[in-house]
Amino acid sequence: MKKIVLLRHGESAWNKENRFTGWTDVDLTEKGIEEAKNAGRLMKEAGFAFDIAFSSVLKRAMRTLWLSLEEMDRLWIPVQRSWRLNERHYGALQGLNKAETAAKYGDDQVLVWRRSYDTPPPALEFDDPRHPRFDARYAPQYSGMSPEHLPLTECLKDTVARFVPYWEDTIAPVVKSGKSVIVAAHGNSIRALVKYLDNISDADIVELNIPTGIPLVYELDDDTLKPIRSYYLGDAEAAAAAAAAVANQAKGK
Amino acid sequence: MKKIVLLRHGESAWNKENRFTGWTDVDLTEKGIEEAKNAGRLMKEAGFAFDIAFSSVLKRAMRTLWLSLEEMDRLWIPVQRSWRLNERHYGALQGLNKAETAAKYGDDQVLVWRRSYDTPPPALEFDDPRHPRFDARYAPQYSGMSPEHLPLTECLKDTVARFVPYWEDTIAPVVKSGKSVIVAAHGNSIRALVKYLDNISDADIVELNIPTGIPLVYELDDDTLKPIRSYYLGDAEAAAAAAAAVANQAKGK
Repeated sequence: MKKIVLLRHGESAWNKENRFTGWTDVDLTEKGIEEAKNAGRLMKEAGFAFDIAFSSVLKRAMRTLWLSLEEMDRLWIPVQRSWRLNERHYGALQGLNKAETAAKYGDDQVLVWRRSYDTPPPALEFDDPRHPRFDARYAPQYSGMSPEHLPLTECLKDTVARFVPYWEDTIAPVVKSGKSVIVAAHGNSIRALVKYLDNISDADIVELNIPTGIPLVYELDDDTLKPIRSYYLGDAEAAAAAAAAVANQAKGK
Repeated sequence: MKKIVLLRHGESAWNKENRFTGWTDVDLTEKGIEEAKNAGRLMKEAGFAFDIAFSSVLKRAMRTLWLSLEEMDRLWIPVQRSWRLNERHYGALQGLNKAETAAKYGDDQVLVWRRSYDTPPPALEFDDPRHPRFDARYAPQYSGMSPEHLPLTECLKDTVARFVPYWEDTIAPVVKSGKSVIVAAHGNSIRALVKYLDNISDADIVELNIPTGIPLVYELDDDTLKPIRSYYLGDAEAAAAAAAAVANQAKGK
């Protein structure tokens, strides 16, 4: 049996400000820093000793990983980073306040953009300063993507489509080889992977919420990597409450 | 012409306490943290935008790299870590106070251990709890070394012998390929590389001191990687003063 950990970053500045974040590179709050350290302590207590880590290229995930590995005295393990683990790209909504956007476009429209499986928010224009081509980390030599093919908006289906191939080609072979793996990512990229691993329907995945900073353990079959079971580390009630808080955010309150 | 940066970590807790550190995994002091951030600002101002970083597996170098890359908004670049960039192993002296050791063995003996090119300090016993085999990062699957071949003490000649092959086989080809490289390491591992690059004699290298937290730029010939010139970033007087402070430490005061 193989065991992996999926870890959503701790609270970020824009989680707190209730703004659409997506690929915006916001940092952790003080609370987020504490969540990350606590995640590291939980994983250490549970006996994890990772051989390798995978992370998005966004600071809130990279820092969460760094802080949790520091608690485990594993800062020295290799880390592979890819934009394919990034949060879902939020298109032209990135930077907008969720409540203001709901007031302008209506709660129903915002809920569609937030939670529809296959309807993306409005796309960024090619010349929008928020276009990923203006950020060095998405240059072709680092991202493997030409500027024309970088995402300008994504629905969850799009996030699944760019993350699952990375899982299959890059992460899964490492897990199968017997190495202990942690994946530091985001609410929607983790949902994308969970959908794939647990074979969750398009309709049901939109109801699933991933709490910040709580390690999610998957026990996988040695050969097929099919999930045997999955569970959060630490206090089960705390995990449920944190997931519910994410769900309530979705209501655009 | 290729340009690389060599960066010695900022002040560590044992630099401050005047203890022999070697492979002991001590962290940065507050001053060391500031030095690391300042190094990042200097490199950013000088226009560096690294594609890849190389680092030892010791926390003080890893954190210095992290903090300086953070200032440059380059936390997302790949980092390759190897024990071959570690500080010189200080053998059985690791953890001892420099002044107390000088009082016990005499200033002359300590100066030999500190600065002789080819006389190592007393070696660790195989069962000494400080033996690197008890530290997970030096396990064969991570270090590529069997426990019997891990260093138990080193003179600078030994550090040259294990770092230069890594430079030649791993770092130099990346530099030649045109990627912008930073090397985050230690006083003696950087001296080892500088000795090799600048072809400094065994006698002269013992007089060379590398200040903490000040980026050392090498401009290298495109084809041969022979140095064209080298210089510290920032205030030249500050770099000279910092190097002199390292030299004075050597006097076991």
